[in-house]
Amino acid sequence: NSACLAVVQPRTTEEVSQCVQLCVQHQVSIVPQGGNTGLCGGAVSTSEQIVLSLSRLNKIRNIDSANHTITAEAGTVLADIQAAAAQEQRLFPLSLGAQSQCQIGGNLSTNAGGINVLRYGNCRDLCLGIEVVLADGRILSDLSTLRKNNTGYDLKNLFIGAEGTLGIITAASLKLFPAPSAKVTVLAAFSSVENLIDYFTQLRQDSNDQINTYELIPRLAIELTCKHFRKQRDPFDDVYPWYALIQLSGNDQIQLEQSLQHSLSYAAQQKQITDAIVAQNLSQTKQLVLLREQLVAAQGHEGPSIKNDISVPISSTPDFLRTAKQQVQAIVPNIRPYPFGHVGDGNIHYNLCAPLGMTAEDFLAQKPTICEALNDLVVDMGGSFSAEHGIGLLKTAQMTQYKNAVSLDVMRAIKNMLDPNNLMNPNKVLPPRG
Amino acid sequence: NSACLAVVQPRTTEEVSQCVQLCVQHQVSIVPQGGNTGLCGGAVSTSEQIVLSLSRLNKIRNIDSANHTITAEAGTVLADIQAAAAQEQRLFPLSLGAQSQCQIGGNLSTNAGGINVLRYGNCRDLCLGIEVVLADGRILSDLSTLRKNNTGYDLKNLFIGAEGTLGIITAASLKLFPAPSAKVTVLAAFSSVENLIDYFTQLRQDSNDQINTYELIPRLAIELTCKHFRKQRDPFDDVYPWYALIQLSGNDQIQLEQSLQHSLSYAAQQKQITDAIVAQNLSQTKQLVLLREQLVAAQGHEGPSIKNDISVPISSTPDFLRTAKQQVQAIVPNIRPYPFGHVGDGNIHYNLCAPLGMTAEDFLAQKPTICEALNDLVVDMGGSFSAEHGIGLLKTAQMTQYKNAVSLDVMRAIKNMLDPNNLMNPNKVLPPRG
Repeated sequence: NSACLAVVQPRTTEEVSQCVQLCVQHQVSIVPQGGNTGLCGGAVSTSEQIVLSLSRLNKIRNIDSANHTITAEAGTVLADIQAAAAQEQRLFPLSLGAQSQCQIGGNLSTNAGGINVLRYGNCRDLCLGIEVVLADGRILSDLSTLRKNNTGYDLKNLFIGAEGTLGIITAASLKLFPAPSAKVTVLAAFSSVENLIDYFTQLRQDSNDQINTYELIPRLAIELTCKHFRKQRDPFDDVYPWYALIQLSGNDQIQLEQSLQHSLSYAAQQKQITDAIVAQNLSQTKQLVLLREQLVAAQGHEGPSIKNDISVPISSTPDFLRTAKQQVQAIVPNIRPYPFGHVGDGNIHYNLCAPLGMTAEDFLAQKPTICEALNDLVVDMGGSFSAEHGIGLLKTAQMTQYKNAVSLDVMRAIKNMLDPNNLMNPNKVLPPRG
Repeated sequence: NSACLAVVQPRTTEEVSQCVQLCVQHQVSIVPQGGNTGLCGGAVSTSEQIVLSLSRLNKIRNIDSANHTITAEAGTVLADIQAAAAQEQRLFPLSLGAQSQCQIGGNLSTNAGGINVLRYGNCRDLCLGIEVVLADGRILSDLSTLRKNNTGYDLKNLFIGAEGTLGIITAASLKLFPAPSAKVTVLAAFSSVENLIDYFTQLRQDSNDQINTYELIPRLAIELTCKHFRKQRDPFDDVYPWYALIQLSGNDQIQLEQSLQHSLSYAAQQKQITDAIVAQNLSQTKQLVLLREQLVAAQGHEGPSIKNDISVPISSTPDFLRTAKQQVQAIVPNIRPYPFGHVGDGNIHYNLCAPLGMTAEDFLAQKPTICEALNDLVVDMGGSFSAEHGIGLLKTAQMTQYKNAVSLDVMRAIKNMLDPNNLMNPNKVLPPRG
């Protein structure tokens, strides 16, 4: 944990407001903190700052199942919101690895993604209204639960994804969905990324756009997961270069499976898909999902790694993966690309494993060169150097490097206007002035 | 048409920028104009303003069917975007009455709604990136076609729905969807609004959330449409107080119809639905859709009317309709409520017909009292006094009356920051200062 002057744990929005007012009086800057699971240092403090923890602000204020909405305070743990929705036969679809620790305020502040974005959108898309304590301590309260409300500027989306630099989100009203009663999970194998992307397009059509998840898995991830997790086995007898973990959901198990089987058979005939395993029961489903989950840790067990969270237009994925591989191999011969993740959103965690035998020191010395080459490539292809993890402290230099000057100027003007004393999570998101 | 100093018709974003720079030099204010189909006067000018028409800025710059995106200039007519998408077997789902005249720049500037919001969202939700000419003439270009991009503040949503008061949208990149090959249309009859809303909730579940349209039609609308359009007949033999026009879409006609029939039968058994007609062919579909379309004109033919575009939480709809009726009848005895529209979004056009025999003059004299009572009620129920039509010139007084002071302050601060000379569509959206 990082240094700080103090940790304050307000229990109410009023207390957050009072705390901010005190900080303004004493010109002390504030680092808002949720579950502290962010990956870019957005909740990291210095010894001159206070940490404002939202953990005690964790009430579910309202759930309206006929309106398909829930209103929860910022410190509510994501899994608790999911559970409250499930009790009403509703789904809150935001789902990610950290869900038992991360808090909805942090999810909103970082516009979290996760594994259901394809069907339900990013965290931003799930939010109907927010309550925010502004940098002067005033409370901006707009906990609307409406689907349609065209009354002035969209303030909500300014604070969502701002990582606490414009104000502190204290509560939000969120969309719920009918809980699907049927689900089907497939691991499909492809001879090329082109086929994997073509089949994604086809499956959007075939499934009536009911795809929850379409996750890229490279061959190396199967190998390393089987190597480092004794209980994992390669699900196929043959070796394929690329795989996709696919999940669809609906409300009629038989119909869902039949329509998927139909789609898979046709794609196999067309040589789009090389092989596929449809999970036949809960234990097979768990096994396939576990493969996708464990591949992250498997990379860690394999040795030194470099991580990237990028996105490109989905149509550019094959070109990106080919060119990226050439470029990183030109920098570090025998480097082992480990690209996986939310390819259906165009979002790839373009991770890299060190060549066998290379020391961590030697490998990580190349990290800046590699990441810059990748980011250059990504931005050149119309992509993003931070798809779902945000900017925090770690990527502010890339903001200067890759965002256009006009956008950066407008962002700075917004920051100056809403936080003239620069007390709200300073030096995050926007590069320091000067 | 309204007075103005001049109408300029730039052909490029650069020309828009030059025009804005000239206006800044000469301190002339600008009214951006698209298809001029807005309902709140957002594109109305005065004799001291220039009208900047986007009509010549109408190229489709790019369509990427594998990425499911299209990039179009602001002056592109909505129907042309729909057609370009259809040529690629894609759907651009924004659909509304004015689609053959309105332009995408105007749709974005007013965050247009329409008949497919239930499934695909408002215009805001369909937009991935924008290009805007700022009030100082600079071009903010962020025509991203990415589904995930967490790199700084969300500037896009600030300009969407701002009705041209913060800058001029000159182009946008938009989401496309697989074109559904199957569609089913139903007119269902209900004995109460409670049942109509309960069935909506049930159908979201039963249809796996594949409802495109769920439109409220009151008995009076059936009567007036049959009265004023000779070719219309009451689709049912019996008389019911409430109807819903429902459309689902998918990719398997038989499966879609079967699952709907199953849902309707069960709801009929439960006495949730009283009667239903499932369109059996294209001509029956057209007839049912025409009923929904013509009910708007039918109200006009019936005599003087008062219109409202409100929303409430969907769960509050029955309570709202009951209370609103009592309140308007207390003001004008025998007034005839004519509430119809996008009830699945919580958005009701709470229109009113004059009592039989009352003069237009007498009736319209009560309009301010009636609208204020309705807006008070709506806001009291957590609703909105402008659901999809925006604010323009007509509803700025309601902004002062109903928006909370902090929200209004932040909106004004944004306006001052982005348009310090108050040249961008002044006096729209925000009430004049003072």
